[in-house]
Amino acid sequence: MARLLPPTLQILRRRCASRSHFSTAPSPVSPPSKAVLYDEHGAPDQVLRVADVPPVHLGDRDVCVRMLAAPINPSDINRIEGVYPVRPPLPGAVGGYEGVGQVHALGPAVTAPLSPGDWVIPSPPSFGTWQTYIVKHESVWHKVRSDVPMEYAATVTVNPLTALRMLQDFVKLNPGDAIVQNGATSIVGQSVIQLAKVHGIHTINIIRDRPGSEEAKDKLKQLGADEVFMESQLDMKNVKNLLGALPEPALGFNCVGGNAASLLLKFLRQGGTMVTYGGMSKRPVTVPTSYFIFKDISLRGFWLQRWMNSDKAEDCRTMIDYLLGLVHEGKLKYEMELIPFGKLSLALEKALGKHGSQPKQVMRF
Amino acid sequence: MARLLPPTLQILRRRCASRSHFSTAPSPVSPPSKAVLYDEHGAPDQVLRVADVPPVHLGDRDVCVRMLAAPINPSDINRIEGVYPVRPPLPGAVGGYEGVGQVHALGPAVTAPLSPGDWVIPSPPSFGTWQTYIVKHESVWHKVRSDVPMEYAATVTVNPLTALRMLQDFVKLNPGDAIVQNGATSIVGQSVIQLAKVHGIHTINIIRDRPGSEEAKDKLKQLGADEVFMESQLDMKNVKNLLGALPEPALGFNCVGGNAASLLLKFLRQGGTMVTYGGMSKRPVTVPTSYFIFKDISLRGFWLQRWMNSDKAEDCRTMIDYLLGLVHEGKLKYEMELIPFGKLSLALEKALGKHGSQPKQVMRF
Repeated sequence: MARLLPPTLQILRRRCASRSHFSTAPSPVSPPSKAVLYDEHGAPDQVLRVADVPPVHLGDRDVCVRMLAAPINPSDINRIEGVYPVRPPLPGAVGGYEGVGQVHALGPAVTAPLSPGDWVIPSPPSFGTWQTYIVKHESVWHKVRSDVPMEYAATVTVNPLTALRMLQDFVKLNPGDAIVQNGATSIVGQSVIQLAKVHGIHTINIIRDRPGSEEAKDKLKQLGADEVFMESQLDMKNVKNLLGALPEPALGFNCVGGNAASLLLKFLRQGGTMVTYGGMSKRPVTVPTSYFIFKDISLRGFWLQRWMNSDKAEDCRTMIDYLLGLVHEGKLKYEMELIPFGKLSLALEKALGKHGSQPKQVMRF
Repeated sequence: MARLLPPTLQILRRRCASRSHFSTAPSPVSPPSKAVLYDEHGAPDQVLRVADVPPVHLGDRDVCVRMLAAPINPSDINRIEGVYPVRPPLPGAVGGYEGVGQVHALGPAVTAPLSPGDWVIPSPPSFGTWQTYIVKHESVWHKVRSDVPMEYAATVTVNPLTALRMLQDFVKLNPGDAIVQNGATSIVGQSVIQLAKVHGIHTINIIRDRPGSEEAKDKLKQLGADEVFMESQLDMKNVKNLLGALPEPALGFNCVGGNAASLLLKFLRQGGTMVTYGGMSKRPVTVPTSYFIFKDISLRGFWLQRWMNSDKAEDCRTMIDYLLGLVHEGKLKYEMELIPFGKLSLALEKALGKHGSQPKQVMRF
């Protein structure tokens, strides 16, 4: 596809601003963009292609954003595979759901306090962040601080916000309480540990047995984890003897399923709640009847995309700011790998687990 | 054990009432009683014995009740087996948890409006109803109407009250809504159908495939069931096509576990709740991760014994009266077999399933 070379939109906008309301000047136009597209569902390395996207005219209140970085999250992969319940329409779907960009140009009637160069994220997140320029209505964009590493701004919504909401939405926790989670090395898991610590909540963490588990355990402890157990350590009837002075947790987060969920349930106190937000083992959650009847355990689910559509999501942007504030203070960190857009194939392979355990892959545009 | 033959306590009480406060008359004494006892946990037909219990003195505010009838519930069996989490202390535990009796005599300072001959039930229910005379503080006893068959007064708490609470405690239901349940032929199941019907709620019912299923289906329909499916009919992906004009249920009751719980979950609408109150199949509840995340399904548990200890239990007696009112009006019925106390062994065998499917066994003292 041929690339156009339009004037920069900043110039265009300035030109518009100096004219009268009745100007018939052409609306500003985005630069040509490159997007990671798919026309049918399937394995990402089979169906994704990088395509040139022609410039688009900005509506009066549109903002054109030059994307800086966007992660490859498991849910992005699942959308491409067609196994995620909410997906962009085909053909011509652009990958990605969150990311950070820089304001490139503004439509002539934009009222939001945005200036070229500002960092913005789509908030609530929205489909199609895997492209170099995005034009969307000003209401989509939330200005964020630019004094944090861009990969944090690019990833703050899907994982850390999930951790924050899950800590707040299900059980009233007080300082000194404890929670338990499996999949603790995931970014949500690491965020849970650090956010809990900020609020004085103890964390009991379950990780897989695999080469490097001891190092993973140490890393989580450095983040503030109170206890980290490998699954094999929990193959006993009364895991609560392992809690020492920690209180029995009233809340648990499950992103694994199968045995790892069963181990988590063993820790929960009478009347406790387990929230499932992932199923990395691809195995179901299996619960003895007695847990429901006699232990009064509740099982719930969390899905950020549903939460974003609820009335609770109003404060989403405030929470994003809070989380990036913690990043800035060094209280929230997790490992990521920024990888140039040109190396998309490698980033995908890593995200798909084809190179063993890898940090979160974040594309740098 | 020798039986004493005391004067009837009614006479004793009348005698007490005519004396001054400073009377030193002996306190009234209960007649000798027979009780179904166990000294250790085990198979009921191995560990239960009928024992004579000597007369006991009534405290000032005690009431002596001649028991009329008490059922053999599965939880009674489980307590005897020692697999129920809350059990009477050993040795000398008396079986049973609910039942109905007739006021036989009152301690001299009883203030409750009770008279000899009144029907009473222990409310909240309490251990030890399998005996011919019980002496307990007046606060234990709730007077109930005596114009219903005694087997209903004897069984109204454990099963129908469970049905009523489960319909009220988890999801706000409105007339026209639907619920789904498995184990629909159980007494709780039959009560759910009838109580739902009284409130304009539709019921979708799942029953086992077995000889007699068609008759069972017809019986449940006569009680007011909207739909009754055998498990084998639900071996399909989209069971909701079977609902016709019925709305998708927001609430389900599971007393079976295993596959029957999975079938129930298929019916639940987005955001629905499944409440587990039994595990007849002795198989756990298994739930795909996606149900929690994308269908927002909640799993809860109900245990009447816990509910009785909660502050919600205040209205327990009002609810008992309501339920017995429905029985009186012919709006709540279920099959039972009254069996003489002398045939305890046979009743136990039937309750233990040794004679195939049998109606609820209720001992008649």
